[in-house]
Amino acid sequence: MSKILVFGHQNPDTDAIGAAISFAYLQKELGKNTEAVALGTPSEETQYALDYFNVDAPRIVSSALNETKEVMLVDHNEFQQSISDIKELTILSVVDHHRIANFETGDPLYYRAEPVGCTSTIIYKMFKENNITIPLNIAGMMVSAIISDTLLFKSPTCTEDDVEAANALADIAEINLTGYGLDLLKAGTNLSDKTAETLLDLDAKSFPLGDKNVRIAQVNTVDLNEVLNRQDELEAAMLAENKANSYDLFVLIITNILDSDSELLVIGDSIDKVEKAFGVKLTNNRAYLEGVVSRKKQVVPQLTEAFS
Amino acid sequence: MSKILVFGHQNPDTDAIGAAISFAYLQKELGKNTEAVALGTPSEETQYALDYFNVDAPRIVSSALNETKEVMLVDHNEFQQSISDIKELTILSVVDHHRIANFETGDPLYYRAEPVGCTSTIIYKMFKENNITIPLNIAGMMVSAIISDTLLFKSPTCTEDDVEAANALADIAEINLTGYGLDLLKAGTNLSDKTAETLLDLDAKSFPLGDKNVRIAQVNTVDLNEVLNRQDELEAAMLAENKANSYDLFVLIITNILDSDSELLVIGDSIDKVEKAFGVKLTNNRAYLEGVVSRKKQVVPQLTEAFS
Repeated sequence: MSKILVFGHQNPDTDAIGAAISFAYLQKELGKNTEAVALGTPSEETQYALDYFNVDAPRIVSSALNETKEVMLVDHNEFQQSISDIKELTILSVVDHHRIANFETGDPLYYRAEPVGCTSTIIYKMFKENNITIPLNIAGMMVSAIISDTLLFKSPTCTEDDVEAANALADIAEINLTGYGLDLLKAGTNLSDKTAETLLDLDAKSFPLGDKNVRIAQVNTVDLNEVLNRQDELEAAMLAENKANSYDLFVLIITNILDSDSELLVIGDSIDKVEKAFGVKLTNNRAYLEGVVSRKKQVVPQLTEAFS
Repeated sequence: MSKILVFGHQNPDTDAIGAAISFAYLQKELGKNTEAVALGTPSEETQYALDYFNVDAPRIVSSALNETKEVMLVDHNEFQQSISDIKELTILSVVDHHRIANFETGDPLYYRAEPVGCTSTIIYKMFKENNITIPLNIAGMMVSAIISDTLLFKSPTCTEDDVEAANALADIAEINLTGYGLDLLKAGTNLSDKTAETLLDLDAKSFPLGDKNVRIAQVNTVDLNEVLNRQDELEAAMLAENKANSYDLFVLIITNILDSDSELLVIGDSIDKVEKAFGVKLTNNRAYLEGVVSRKKQVVPQLTEAFS
């Protein structure tokens, strides 16, 4: 039986890693020869969860063809966010909670997407549908993913299904949801010792919008000023990234996870479209976005509309 | 609550109509304001099922924006097979069993695809998962769709899930699966009174393959010669269709549903790629394809590969 690699998106967040681990486990229980891998190093937040639940970080890969032709994607579908040789691979299944775009297969496949806050919430349902018991450490990674993606249920992407799954998983994982949740989120906001380049790459995805290539990065913090004090350094790094990677536009969302709002920092073309998307005027390349915490629900659709 | 239109692909077959009717019913039971509609007239096969189970044919529409912005797709996802204004609509959900291509949304959605023989098999699972009782006439349309898509379980696309769903639905619908099944399939093979243009349009879909626009049509028969005797007339109509619709290539698959094989008739560019796809030499624009009955599994992937 040929091996099947299971992975989340590039620049993996806790859901990309947690969903890969839990979906690979589920599929193994269902008789498939799966291995969870990752397209990048776990963030400090994810590493906190891995350490807490004593789970090994998945092996990091950048291509698959040298070892297998068969893959399963979690927490993403857009090819530019996936493994480098995705177009030459057979995608057996996808479990995701994002919009669908830049995705194509030659054959029918298993695809399960739901408009919920976290991929791990969907995987939780699949464990239940298949009557597979979730081990404590897998449940721990899954509940960590839900806490991370929903910012402990504060994100507008959070649904009743996410809350229900998180509560059930917290019981299995034997954690206090609020206590563990805040510790997990804070573990991801240790920004001071990171270079501007690292900050921009912590949670960044590329999107073709209209005829523009747009990079949208997000950093979480408990103190906006800690990041904004480094504006000059960040702008220089964004300019350099645009040039090196042919991005037309770099959008950085700096999110205060305690207050649930964000500051926008933008470098590149089509600034007018960004202003239109959010109904703001940029001053000093910046704008305050009240109540905005979700790239998926409060940033990407608005930019897609403005660029279309 | 705004209305949601539910529909299958253009040139609807029994699954496109049956899945729209059953999924609209399921979603209505779940509290949504759905209406099943169709993007074309039911085939004679489908009309046989509608008459047998005393179900009204869905209203035919060609666009949606004039009445609603929200839609749910069944049995297809590729935009060129969908409603004319699909790009301006909000797709709330998709239930399908085809490859995914030429499909894109701005927002997360519910997407459920499985590599099974029929969309109605997936919808049967969703009824069960949601504990919704399936009425006799809805079950009748669903089992008709499975019979149609799997050619009464003979197609290589047919899975254990399809057989299981069909048996359960046949019980609810109070039919003998084999007896009703053969009657249903034969109702769709009454070709003699149809023009060549009508034959080509009975079950036809467009696919962008490489940089070519390829039309792939299929007709079912119980006697290949009944169709092949009309080769000249069919070729003239295929040429005219290519010209009128800018198809680079027209591929017609004439399938004997009793013997489970097909004859291929091809008009247009890139004939060499068709020969490569199926490992045959065309003679007089034709080739015999032993054991080929499924466009989805035995034609589209092979052509996709040859054109890529």
